[in-house]
Amino acid sequence: MTNTVEETTPGLAAAIARFTEALGEEAVLLDSARVDEFRDPFEGPGATEHQPSFVVQPGSVEEVQDVVRIARECGVQLWTSSMGRNFGYGGSAPIVGGSVVVSLRRLNRILEINEEVGYVLLEPGVTFFELYEELQRRDVALAMSVPDLGWGSVVGNALQHGFGYHEHGIHADAVCGMEVVLANGEVLRTGQGANSRSTLWQAHKRAFGPSLDSLFMQSNFGIVTKMGLWLTPRPEVIVTGSIVCEGEDDILPLIDLLRPLVRDKTVQGLPLLSATRMVDDSAEGEAADRARKLRSIMRPGRWNARVSMYGRAAVVAAQRAVIEEQVAKVPGARLELRTYAGDASVDDVHPRDRVPAGIPTMVLLDLIKEAFYGDDTGHIDFAPVIPFEGAAAARHEQMVTRVLEEFGLAGMFAWIVNPRSMVGACMVLFDKTSAEQVARAHAAVRKMCDLAAEWGWTEYRAHISLADDVAQNFDFGDHALSRTYSSIKNALDPDGILSPGSHGIWPAAT
Amino acid sequence: MTNTVEETTPGLAAAIARFTEALGEEAVLLDSARVDEFRDPFEGPGATEHQPSFVVQPGSVEEVQDVVRIARECGVQLWTSSMGRNFGYGGSAPIVGGSVVVSLRRLNRILEINEEVGYVLLEPGVTFFELYEELQRRDVALAMSVPDLGWGSVVGNALQHGFGYHEHGIHADAVCGMEVVLANGEVLRTGQGANSRSTLWQAHKRAFGPSLDSLFMQSNFGIVTKMGLWLTPRPEVIVTGSIVCEGEDDILPLIDLLRPLVRDKTVQGLPLLSATRMVDDSAEGEAADRARKLRSIMRPGRWNARVSMYGRAAVVAAQRAVIEEQVAKVPGARLELRTYAGDASVDDVHPRDRVPAGIPTMVLLDLIKEAFYGDDTGHIDFAPVIPFEGAAAARHEQMVTRVLEEFGLAGMFAWIVNPRSMVGACMVLFDKTSAEQVARAHAAVRKMCDLAAEWGWTEYRAHISLADDVAQNFDFGDHALSRTYSSIKNALDPDGILSPGSHGIWPAAT
Repeated sequence: MTNTVEETTPGLAAAIARFTEALGEEAVLLDSARVDEFRDPFEGPGATEHQPSFVVQPGSVEEVQDVVRIARECGVQLWTSSMGRNFGYGGSAPIVGGSVVVSLRRLNRILEINEEVGYVLLEPGVTFFELYEELQRRDVALAMSVPDLGWGSVVGNALQHGFGYHEHGIHADAVCGMEVVLANGEVLRTGQGANSRSTLWQAHKRAFGPSLDSLFMQSNFGIVTKMGLWLTPRPEVIVTGSIVCEGEDDILPLIDLLRPLVRDKTVQGLPLLSATRMVDDSAEGEAADRARKLRSIMRPGRWNARVSMYGRAAVVAAQRAVIEEQVAKVPGARLELRTYAGDASVDDVHPRDRVPAGIPTMVLLDLIKEAFYGDDTGHIDFAPVIPFEGAAAARHEQMVTRVLEEFGLAGMFAWIVNPRSMVGACMVLFDKTSAEQVARAHAAVRKMCDLAAEWGWTEYRAHISLADDVAQNFDFGDHALSRTYSSIKNALDPDGILSPGSHGIWPAAT
Repeated sequence: MTNTVEETTPGLAAAIARFTEALGEEAVLLDSARVDEFRDPFEGPGATEHQPSFVVQPGSVEEVQDVVRIARECGVQLWTSSMGRNFGYGGSAPIVGGSVVVSLRRLNRILEINEEVGYVLLEPGVTFFELYEELQRRDVALAMSVPDLGWGSVVGNALQHGFGYHEHGIHADAVCGMEVVLANGEVLRTGQGANSRSTLWQAHKRAFGPSLDSLFMQSNFGIVTKMGLWLTPRPEVIVTGSIVCEGEDDILPLIDLLRPLVRDKTVQGLPLLSATRMVDDSAEGEAADRARKLRSIMRPGRWNARVSMYGRAAVVAAQRAVIEEQVAKVPGARLELRTYAGDASVDDVHPRDRVPAGIPTMVLLDLIKEAFYGDDTGHIDFAPVIPFEGAAAARHEQMVTRVLEEFGLAGMFAWIVNPRSMVGACMVLFDKTSAEQVARAHAAVRKMCDLAAEWGWTEYRAHISLADDVAQNFDFGDHALSRTYSSIKNALDPDGILSPGSHGIWPAAT
């Protein structure tokens, strides 16, 4: 067994022994081949900055407590990861190289599915695929919201402020109650779960005093070991499809059309608004090739707003009539809608409609791989929050296109439409076996971040290498937010062992 | 001028001088007649436990910073109050008698109304009446959610996890971005507002890193000086009314009927489910008199579920048809619905329908005063969170009725229906000029809390005299939640000057 760990580091060597004693040999991954799975999957050849020293995989809450206590006693820094499938942001890799990755993949139980009340209680190792399969297996009349790729952790996604497209598509808003292992090794339950006699842990969001759920999202204040998540009743019908526009300037009327429909919930869930650069069939050269590949992947149109409705057939029919009437008023806009039964199975639903129907897939990644570099396809994501306005969207898309051109790169471009804002979802694509391409892609995204920051836009999530830069944008009151984070960090994790640097939050001890 | 302050207390005397110097004489209320307005309005004759020493009324954020700095330097404890209209929970009165009340009534500006995006930015001294009037005056096409009484602070209500009945009726969920003066005198802006170049402070709820808005609700970690709040588009139509049942056991089928309609948003906003005890016309005695008075105030029926729909006329018509069909299936249930235009003015709307229509009123209090003790009518509220189940509701109502009978008191009884839980809203009524009645009412509510706690139910808000008792229910992990609160409290307010004891959170310094 090749041991990559610097066994000369006394803390680490002692920690390995202690972790092995507490969790068993199988739960402590030291072999470089196994540790590699927890590196940034797209860091490129030769990169070492964010390399974990090794990985521990606790199998129970008690073992997570053990891990934390041992880390404190040995002075070792941890980096928590649920499934680590957030590949565009660094996977399971720690910000501080040499940290020990605490992978929660073995905490993979669906602890409760409550159809009557409409929630699930999950451990962080449960994937969207697994939850969906279990709901199907038990024929539970609840519907999930899923992100574009279904292999990730449901809990991890919500903790990272992730989005899906069904109702409850703002996953952080659907969280109701957590269990958290604190840096002192204690187990905290939030909300009604803090009352050991309550049956309402997943049913009512607040208790008495400040609600702490959001304090443990995008944070390094604790390790979340259980999470309640609200699901929506399985609708009678699902209607999903697109409003398509072909004109370069049609983003302005398209967003004007979309805004009131979103705001008054005539469409439900989160629309996905995507942009595809036009390319002449006869155009030659690498850029034209890339553009053609992207066109083959993207939905039709220069601009495409995917909209969905979920509910009782008669109500959805009334909503659909409103949309048809509104779209008809916009010159050049066309509407394509498809209807599914709420309990349609995977095979009944067109692959492109599965995500809005709440069915996890890997379709997007499969398509991208096929069109670009196969299994060597890498991506880094640029995801700023921008105003829900046509002019802002146009400016954003032009900037990204310009930077991609400047750096000779291809990228997918879309926005996840929130009620009062939009979240950019741009994947910058590259060949991960080329260190030069990796560096170029990182430089391009850094430049996008810098340009966006000038307009007051910041990323809702960021690759680990960009965390400090993004956090720097929050400057009000001479960075009062950052100081407040640090005060809380030092109070809850005085030794600074939990995920140092996550979201720009550094312990004083560092 | 009668000075009620113990001027022999060196800290307080020095603080008065410093506050007067910083804020001006008019902003420091020392006269007992003026300070009395900030006592518990229903504490009864002779009570002194929760008496403020005096009141300061800063007129700007800078003056709030001054107040905090002076309090630290003088070692004085503060108690923050917005409007202080939460009379059933103690008004502006501090938990620790002798604290200086920081009344934010002078921070009463509506800083922004954004019709396009759908939010307002408010200071804590703005009441529901004032916001409504300003929306009307400018003819803004946005609708508010209002609680039963419109005289309170919009910000204060949301900070206390308060409820209204329109869309966004869970007011804490509608909060988007805050400005907070911390105990160190610094000003923090949360969310996108922490980025000084962002225009999205009230448009997007999270930024990068943990979201802190909920940390400053039901809390003593800072003084909120600005808050963003999402409003809903003014609907085309409002349909509101009741599902009425007369049978003693009809609460079970009524909740079974209501649950799916709430869960899939066929009804919008938060239904109000109320219970009225039957009384024979010929019955005599004090209890029968009280019951008859209450019947004259309450909505019709033994059980009454107020339901509302808001939106486009065609969609609401489809929703209404669903409700009619479902109610027809329940023997003995009858439906009464009234329709209003979304822009109906106060006079167009029946007084009983104003609150669900988003129009602030004082109707409830006026009715209660008229039926009971006039301006001497006092109340203390009992408001546990319970399961959204018929059996739980029946058990709850029987317990409250039994305790009221045991203590010889009258009370209004209702639940605010949340998507997966219900929040009890019971006002125990008494003559506030009778110390004996006040004591009896407090004892009754304490008994209700104790009985509810045995079933795992705890109050979502509580009278200041009950804060520690309610907080005690959160016992999981040997009271890990309480220790976590204390850690954060000590980090953010090491001198323990901000609202000590609020929601059971005590500083280490105490």
